[in-house]
Amino acid sequence: MSLPEGFYIRRVEEKDFEQVTETLKVLTTVGTIAPEAFSNLLKYWNESTVWNDDNDKKIMQYNPMVIVDKRTETVAATGNIIIERKIIHELALCGHIEDIAVNPKYQGQGLGKLLIDQLVAIGFSYGCYKIILDCDEKNVKFYEKCGFSNAGVEMQIRK
Amino acid sequence: MSLPEGFYIRRVEEKDFEQVTETLKVLTTVGTIAPEAFSNLLKYWNESTVWNDDNDKKIMQYNPMVIVDKRTETVAATGNIIIERKIIHELALCGHIEDIAVNPKYQGQGLGKLLIDQLVAIGFSYGCYKIILDCDEKNVKFYEKCGFSNAGVEMQIRK
Ligand SMILES: CC(=O)N[C@@H]1[C@@H](O)[C@H](O)[C@@H](COP(=O)(O)O)O[C@@H]1O
Ligand SMILES: CC(=O)N[C@@H]1[C@@H](O)[C@H](O)[C@@H](COP(=O)(O)O)O[C@@H]1O
Repeated sequence: MSLPEGFYIRRVEEKDFEQVTETLKVLTTVGTIAPEAFSNLLKYWNESTVWNDDNDKKIMQYNPMVIVDKRTETVAATGNIIIERKIIHELALCGHIEDIAVNPKYQGQGLGKLLIDQLVAIGFSYGCYKIILDCDEKNVKFYEKCGFSNAGVEMQIRK
Repeated sequence: MSLPEGFYIRRVEEKDFEQVTETLKVLTTVGTIAPEAFSNLLKYWNESTVWNDDNDKKIMQYNPMVIVDKRTETVAATGNIIIERKIIHELALCGHIEDIAVNPKYQGQGLGKLLIDQLVAIGFSYGCYKIILDCDEKNVKFYEKCGFSNAGVEMQIRK
Protein backbone atom coordinates (compact mmCIF):
# COMPACT_ATOMS: atom_id res chain seq x y z
CA MET A 1 0.00 0.00 0.00
CA SER A 2 2.93 2.39 0.44
CA LEU A 3 4.88 3.98 -2.38
CA PRO A 4 8.09 2.31 -3.54
CA GLU A 5 11.39 3.76 -2.34
CA GLY A 6 12.31 6.81 -4.37
CA PHE A 7 8.77 8.13 -4.89
CA TYR A 8 6.55 10.49 -2.95
CA ILE A 9 3.02 11.82 -3.37
CA ARG A 10 1.78 15.38 -2.86
CA ARG A 11 -0.76 17.92 -4.10
CA VAL A 12 -0.15 19.41 -7.53
CA GLU A 13 1.85 22.66 -7.38
CA GLU A 14 2.51 25.46 -9.87
CA LYS A 15 5.89 24.03 -10.81
CA ASP A 16 4.15 20.87 -12.09
CA PHE A 17 2.49 22.78 -14.93
CA GLU A 18 4.46 21.30 -17.84
CA GLN A 19 4.81 17.78 -16.50
CA VAL A 20 1.20 17.40 -15.40
CA THR A 21 -0.21 18.69 -18.68
CA GLU A 22 2.22 16.40 -20.54
CA THR A 23 1.26 13.37 -18.43
CA LEU A 24 -2.47 13.98 -18.99
CA LYS A 25 -1.93 13.61 -22.74
CA VAL A 26 -1.91 9.83 -22.31
CA LEU A 27 -5.56 10.15 -21.17
CA THR A 28 -7.04 12.60 -23.67
CA THR A 29 -6.66 15.99 -25.41
CA VAL A 30 -5.11 18.64 -23.20
CA GLY A 31 -4.67 21.49 -25.70
CA THR A 32 -2.84 24.75 -25.12
CA ILE A 33 -2.88 26.17 -21.62
CA ALA A 34 -1.18 29.40 -20.52
CA PRO A 35 0.93 29.08 -17.35
CA GLU A 36 -1.03 31.97 -15.74
CA ALA A 37 -4.31 30.20 -16.43
CA PHE A 38 -2.91 27.07 -14.79
CA SER A 39 -1.92 29.16 -11.74
CA ASN A 40 -5.43 30.56 -11.55
CA LEU A 41 -6.88 27.07 -11.75
CA LEU A 42 -4.65 25.90 -8.87
CA LYS A 43 -5.65 28.95 -6.84
CA TYR A 44 -9.32 28.03 -7.35
CA TRP A 45 -8.67 24.36 -6.58
CA ASN A 46 -6.74 25.28 -3.42
CA GLU A 47 -9.39 27.67 -2.14
CA SER A 48 -12.51 25.57 -2.77
CA THR A 49 -13.74 23.77 0.31
CA VAL A 50 -16.85 21.69 0.93
CA TRP A 51 -19.32 22.73 3.62
CA ASN A 52 -18.87 20.59 6.71
CA ASP A 53 -20.91 20.60 9.92
CA ASP A 54 -17.80 19.58 11.82
CA ASN A 55 -15.92 22.84 11.33
CA ASP A 56 -12.65 21.40 12.56
CA LYS A 57 -12.25 19.22 9.53
CA LYS A 58 -11.44 21.07 6.33
CA ILE A 59 -12.64 19.24 3.24
CA MET A 60 -11.02 20.21 -0.05
CA GLN A 61 -13.35 20.11 -3.07
CA TYR A 62 -10.50 19.25 -5.45
CA ASN A 63 -7.59 17.03 -4.49
CA PRO A 64 -5.17 17.01 -7.43
CA MET A 65 -2.21 14.76 -6.65
CA VAL A 66 1.08 13.77 -8.25
CA ILE A 67 3.39 10.85 -7.59
CA VAL A 68 6.92 12.18 -8.06
CA ASP A 69 10.20 10.39 -8.78
CA LYS A 70 12.45 11.89 -6.08
CA ARG A 71 15.72 11.43 -7.93
CA THR A 72 14.75 13.39 -11.03
CA GLU A 73 11.70 15.29 -9.76
CA THR A 74 9.69 13.70 -12.58
CA VAL A 75 5.90 13.43 -12.40
CA ALA A 76 5.21 9.70 -12.68
CA ALA A 77 1.41 9.82 -12.28
CA THR A 78 -1.41 12.26 -11.63
CA GLY A 79 -5.06 12.14 -10.62
CA ASN A 80 -7.78 14.00 -8.74
CA ILE A 81 -10.66 13.27 -6.39
CA ILE A 82 -13.52 15.77 -6.38
CA ILE A 83 -15.80 15.84 -3.35
CA GLU A 84 -19.54 16.42 -3.79
CA ARG A 85 -21.97 17.25 -0.95
CA LYS A 86 -25.37 15.61 -1.54
CA ILE A 87 -28.80 15.54 0.12
CA ILE A 88 -29.18 11.73 -0.01
CA HIS A 89 -27.74 9.47 2.71
CA GLU A 90 -28.13 12.26 5.30
CA LEU A 91 -26.26 14.96 3.41
CA ALA A 92 -23.50 12.54 2.50
CA LEU A 93 -20.25 13.16 0.65
CA CYS A 94 -19.50 11.34 -2.59
CA GLY A 95 -15.99 11.21 -4.08
CA HIS A 96 -15.40 11.35 -7.84
CA ILE A 97 -12.01 10.11 -9.04
CA GLU A 98 -11.06 11.93 -12.24
CA ASP A 99 -8.30 12.38 -14.77
CA ILE A 100 -5.98 9.52 -13.87
CA ALA A 101 -2.83 9.32 -15.97
CA VAL A 102 0.46 7.48 -15.56
CA ASN A 103 3.55 8.77 -17.35
CA PRO A 104 4.41 6.12 -20.00
CA LYS A 105 8.00 5.91 -18.66
CA TYR A 106 6.62 4.79 -15.29
CA GLN A 107 3.92 2.36 -16.38
CA GLY A 108 3.97 -1.27 -15.22
CA GLN A 109 5.38 -0.46 -11.76
CA GLY A 110 2.09 -0.48 -9.87
CA LEU A 111 2.10 3.30 -9.45
CA GLY A 112 -1.41 3.63 -10.92
CA LYS A 113 -2.84 1.40 -8.20
CA LEU A 114 -0.92 3.26 -5.49
CA LEU A 115 -2.30 6.56 -6.80
CA ILE A 116 -5.87 5.21 -6.70
CA ASP A 117 -5.26 3.84 -3.18
CA GLN A 118 -4.18 7.32 -2.06
CA LEU A 119 -7.13 9.08 -3.69
CA VAL A 120 -9.51 6.54 -2.11
CA ALA A 121 -7.85 7.13 1.27
CA ILE A 122 -8.36 10.90 0.88
CA GLY A 123 -12.05 10.40 0.03
CA PHE A 124 -12.70 8.06 2.95
CA SER A 125 -10.75 10.28 5.36
CA TYR A 126 -13.26 13.05 4.53
CA GLY A 127 -16.10 10.60 5.25
CA CYS A 128 -17.35 9.85 1.72
CA TYR A 129 -19.99 7.08 1.77
CA LYS A 130 -18.76 5.97 -1.66
CA ILE A 131 -16.18 6.86 -4.27
CA ILE A 132 -16.99 6.48 -7.95
CA LEU A 133 -15.24 6.83 -11.28
CA ASP A 134 -15.97 6.25 -14.93
CA CYS A 135 -13.68 4.27 -17.17
CA ASP A 136 -13.37 2.38 -20.43
CA GLU A 137 -14.36 -1.27 -20.45
CA LYS A 138 -10.67 -2.10 -20.95
CA ASN A 139 -9.74 -0.55 -17.58
CA VAL A 140 -12.36 -2.39 -15.52
CA LYS A 141 -9.88 -5.13 -14.49
CA PHE A 142 -7.40 -2.53 -13.25
CA TYR A 143 -10.02 -0.80 -11.09
CA GLU A 144 -11.21 -4.16 -9.76
CA LYS A 145 -7.65 -4.75 -8.54
CA CYS A 146 -7.99 -1.41 -6.76
CA GLY A 147 -11.07 -2.67 -4.88
CA PHE A 148 -13.75 -1.16 -7.12
CA SER A 149 -16.72 -2.99 -8.61
CA ASN A 150 -19.16 -2.31 -11.42
CA ALA A 151 -21.91 0.10 -10.33
CA GLY A 152 -23.66 1.17 -13.52
CA VAL A 153 -23.40 2.76 -16.91
CA GLU A 154 -21.78 6.09 -17.75
CA MET A 155 -23.85 8.13 -20.20
CA GLN A 156 -22.68 11.33 -21.90
CA ILE A 157 -23.86 14.14 -24.10
CA ARG A 158 -21.42 16.42 -25.94
CA LYS A 159 -21.97 19.75 -27.60
CA MET B 1 -38.86 21.02 -25.01
CA SER B 2 -40.84 23.38 -22.79
CA LEU B 3 -42.66 22.42 -19.62
CA PRO B 4 -46.35 21.53 -19.87
CA GLU B 5 -48.88 24.18 -18.82
CA GLY B 6 -49.19 24.27 -15.06
CA PHE B 7 -45.56 23.50 -14.24
CA TYR B 8 -42.50 25.65 -13.70
CA ILE B 9 -38.84 24.97 -12.94
CA ARG B 10 -36.58 26.81 -10.49
CA ARG B 11 -33.65 26.34 -8.11
CA VAL B 12 -34.32 24.42 -4.91
CA GLU B 13 -35.30 26.71 -2.01
CA GLU B 14 -35.51 26.23 1.77
CA LYS B 15 -39.25 25.70 1.63
CA ASP B 16 -38.70 22.60 -0.54
CA PHE B 17 -37.03 20.75 2.33
CA GLU B 18 -39.76 18.18 3.01
CA GLN B 19 -40.88 17.64 -0.55
CA VAL B 20 -37.40 17.35 -2.02
CA THR B 21 -36.21 14.88 0.61
CA GLU B 22 -39.44 12.91 0.12
CA THR B 23 -39.06 12.87 -3.67
CA LEU B 24 -35.44 11.68 -3.44
CA LYS B 25 -36.63 8.55 -1.60
CA VAL B 26 -37.66 7.03 -4.94
CA LEU B 27 -33.94 7.10 -5.87
CA THR B 28 -32.24 5.85 -2.71
CA THR B 29 -31.89 6.21 1.08
CA VAL B 30 -32.28 9.78 2.29
CA GLY B 31 -32.28 9.25 6.08
CA THR B 32 -33.00 11.85 8.73
CA ILE B 33 -32.01 15.43 7.96
CA ALA B 34 -32.53 18.41 10.27
CA PRO B 35 -34.13 21.46 8.61
CA GLU B 36 -31.21 23.65 9.77
CA ALA B 37 -28.72 21.27 8.20
CA PHE B 38 -30.68 21.48 4.94
CA SER B 39 -30.55 25.30 5.14
CA ASN B 40 -26.79 25.15 5.64
CA LEU B 41 -26.45 22.84 2.66
CA LEU B 42 -28.44 25.26 0.46
CA LYS B 43 -26.32 28.16 1.70
CA TYR B 44 -23.18 26.25 0.65
CA TRP B 45 -24.72 25.25 -2.68
CA ASN B 46 -25.79 28.85 -3.37
CA GLU B 47 -22.40 30.32 -2.52
CA SER B 48 -20.14 27.90 -4.38
CA THR B 49 -19.01 29.19 -7.73
CA VAL B 50 -16.56 27.79 -10.25
CA TRP B 51 -13.52 29.82 -11.27
CA ASN B 52 -14.06 31.42 -14.65
CA ASP B 53 -11.61 33.47 -16.72
CA ASP B 54 -14.55 35.41 -18.14
CA ASN B 55 -15.48 37.16 -14.91
CA ASP B 56 -18.79 38.39 -16.26
CA LYS B 57 -20.25 34.93 -16.32
CA LYS B 58 -21.01 33.43 -12.90
CA ILE B 59 -20.88 29.66 -12.88
CA MET B 60 -22.65 27.89 -10.04
CA GLN B 61 -20.94 24.70 -8.81
CA TYR B 62 -24.24 23.12 -7.78
CA ASN B 63 -27.48 23.64 -9.68
CA PRO B 64 -30.24 21.88 -7.71
CA MET B 65 -33.55 22.25 -9.53
CA VAL B 66 -37.20 21.37 -8.96
CA ILE B 67 -40.11 21.13 -11.36
CA VAL B 68 -43.15 22.40 -9.46
CA ASP B 69 -46.88 21.85 -10.04
CA LYS B 70 -48.16 25.44 -9.94
CA ARG B 71 -51.67 24.61 -8.80
CA THR B 72 -50.68 22.76 -5.63
CA GLU B 73 -47.05 23.89 -5.24
CA THR B 74 -46.06 20.22 -5.30
CA VAL B 75 -42.50 19.17 -6.21
CA ALA B 76 -42.93 16.90 -9.23
CA ALA B 77 -39.26 16.21 -9.94
CA THR B 78 -35.79 17.16 -8.73
CA GLY B 79 -32.20 16.89 -9.95
CA ASN B 80 -28.82 18.60 -9.87
CA ILE B 81 -25.93 19.35 -12.20
CA ILE B 82 -22.52 19.79 -10.59
CA ILE B 83 -19.87 21.66 -12.55
CA GLU B 84 -16.24 20.54 -12.43
CA ARG B 85 -13.26 22.59 -13.67
CA LYS B 86 -10.59 20.34 -15.23
CA ILE B 87 -7.10 20.70 -16.73
CA ILE B 88 -7.85 18.60 -19.83
CA HIS B 89 -9.43 20.13 -22.96
CA GLU B 90 -7.87 23.52 -22.16
CA LEU B 91 -9.17 23.85 -18.61
CA ALA B 92 -12.61 22.68 -19.67
CA LEU B 93 -15.80 22.37 -17.64
CA CYS B 94 -17.52 19.02 -17.24
CA GLY B 95 -21.10 18.72 -15.98
CA HIS B 96 -22.21 15.88 -13.72
CA ILE B 97 -25.96 15.23 -13.56
CA GLU B 98 -26.84 13.77 -10.16
CA ASP B 99 -29.73 12.70 -7.97
CA ILE B 100 -32.59 12.67 -10.46
CA ALA B 101 -35.95 11.73 -8.98
CA VAL B 102 -39.52 12.08 -10.21
CA ASN B 103 -42.38 12.12 -7.69
CA PRO B 104 -44.32 8.87 -8.29
CA LYS B 105 -47.58 10.89 -8.62
CA TYR B 106 -46.07 12.70 -11.61
CA GLN B 107 -44.37 9.86 -13.42
CA GLY B 108 -45.26 9.01 -17.03
CA GLN B 109 -45.83 12.66 -18.06
CA GLY B 110 -42.44 13.28 -19.62
CA LEU B 111 -41.29 15.50 -16.74
CA GLY B 112 -38.13 13.46 -16.21
CA LYS B 113 -36.98 14.18 -19.75
CA LEU B 114 -37.84 17.88 -19.41
CA LEU B 115 -35.81 18.05 -16.20
CA ILE B 116 -32.81 16.45 -17.91
CA ASP B 117 -33.22 18.85 -20.88
CA GLN B 118 -33.08 21.80 -18.47
CA LEU B 119 -30.04 20.48 -16.58
CA VAL B 120 -28.26 19.86 -19.89
CA ALA B 121 -29.16 23.40 -21.01
CA ILE B 122 -27.66 24.80 -17.79
CA GLY B 123 -24.43 22.80 -18.30
CA PHE B 124 -24.02 23.87 -21.92
CA SER B 125 -24.86 27.50 -21.11
CA TYR B 126 -21.83 27.48 -18.79
CA GLY B 127 -19.74 26.05 -21.63
CA CYS B 128 -19.30 22.43 -20.50
CA TYR B 129 -17.58 20.36 -23.20
CA LYS B 130 -19.60 17.33 -22.06
CA ILE B 131 -22.18 16.36 -19.50
CA ILE B 132 -22.10 12.92 -17.92
CA LEU B 133 -24.18 10.85 -15.52
CA ASP B 134 -24.22 7.36 -14.11
CA CYS B 135 -27.31 5.18 -14.16
CA ASP B 136 -28.62 1.67 -13.87
CA GLU B 137 -28.71 -0.45 -17.03
CA LYS B 138 -32.52 -0.23 -16.84
CA ASN B 139 -32.45 3.56 -17.27
CA VAL B 140 -30.16 3.61 -20.32
CA LYS B 141 -33.12 3.79 -22.76
CA PHE B 142 -34.55 6.81 -20.91
CA TYR B 143 -31.24 8.69 -21.09
CA GLU B 144 -30.85 7.79 -24.76
CA LYS B 145 -34.21 9.51 -25.35
CA CYS B 146 -32.67 12.53 -23.63
CA GLY B 147 -29.81 12.57 -26.18
CA PHE B 148 -27.19 10.72 -24.13
CA SER B 149 -25.13 7.76 -25.29
CA ASN B 150 -23.07 5.11 -23.56
CA ALA B 151 -19.62 6.41 -22.61
CA GLY B 152 -18.16 3.84 -20.24
CA VAL B 153 -18.48 1.90 -17.04
CA GLU B 154 -19.22 3.32 -13.59
CA MET B 155 -17.04 1.74 -10.89
CA GLN B 156 -17.51 2.25 -7.15
CA ILE B 157 -15.94 1.51 -3.82
CA ARG B 158 -17.91 1.80 -0.56
CA LYS B 159 -16.71 1.93 3.00
C1 LIG C 1 -10.98 7.36 -13.84
C2 LIG C 1 -10.64 8.30 -14.94
O1 LIG C 1 -9.55 8.82 -15.00
N1 LIG C 1 -11.63 8.58 -15.82
C3 LIG C 1 -11.42 9.53 -16.90
C4 LIG C 1 -12.13 10.83 -16.62
O2 LIG C 1 -11.76 11.33 -15.36
C5 LIG C 1 -11.73 11.82 -17.70
O3 LIG C 1 -12.25 13.10 -17.44
C6 LIG C 1 -12.18 11.29 -19.05
C7 LIG C 1 -11.71 12.18 -20.15
O4 LIG C 1 -12.19 11.71 -21.38
P1 LIG C 1 -12.70 12.69 -22.52
O5 LIG C 1 -11.54 13.53 -22.89
O6 LIG C 1 -13.17 11.77 -23.59
O7 LIG C 1 -13.80 13.52 -21.92
O8 LIG C 1 -11.64 9.97 -19.24
C8 LIG C 1 -11.90 9.00 -18.25
O9 LIG C 1 -13.28 8.73 -18.17
C1 LIG D 1 -28.47 10.22 -13.01
C2 LIG D 1 -28.70 9.88 -11.58
O1 LIG D 1 -29.61 10.39 -10.93
N1 LIG D 1 -27.82 8.99 -11.03
C3 LIG D 1 -27.92 8.65 -9.62
C4 LIG D 1 -26.83 9.32 -8.82
O2 LIG D 1 -26.84 10.70 -9.05
C5 LIG D 1 -27.09 9.03 -7.35
O3 LIG D 1 -26.21 9.73 -6.52
C6 LIG D 1 -27.03 7.53 -7.12
C7 LIG D 1 -27.40 7.19 -5.70
O4 LIG D 1 -27.25 5.83 -5.50
P1 LIG D 1 -26.67 5.24 -4.14
O5 LIG D 1 -27.60 5.68 -3.06
O6 LIG D 1 -26.67 3.77 -4.38
O7 LIG D 1 -25.31 5.82 -3.95
O8 LIG D 1 -27.95 6.87 -8.02
C8 LIG D 1 -27.82 7.14 -9.40
O9 LIG D 1 -26.59 6.67 -9.87
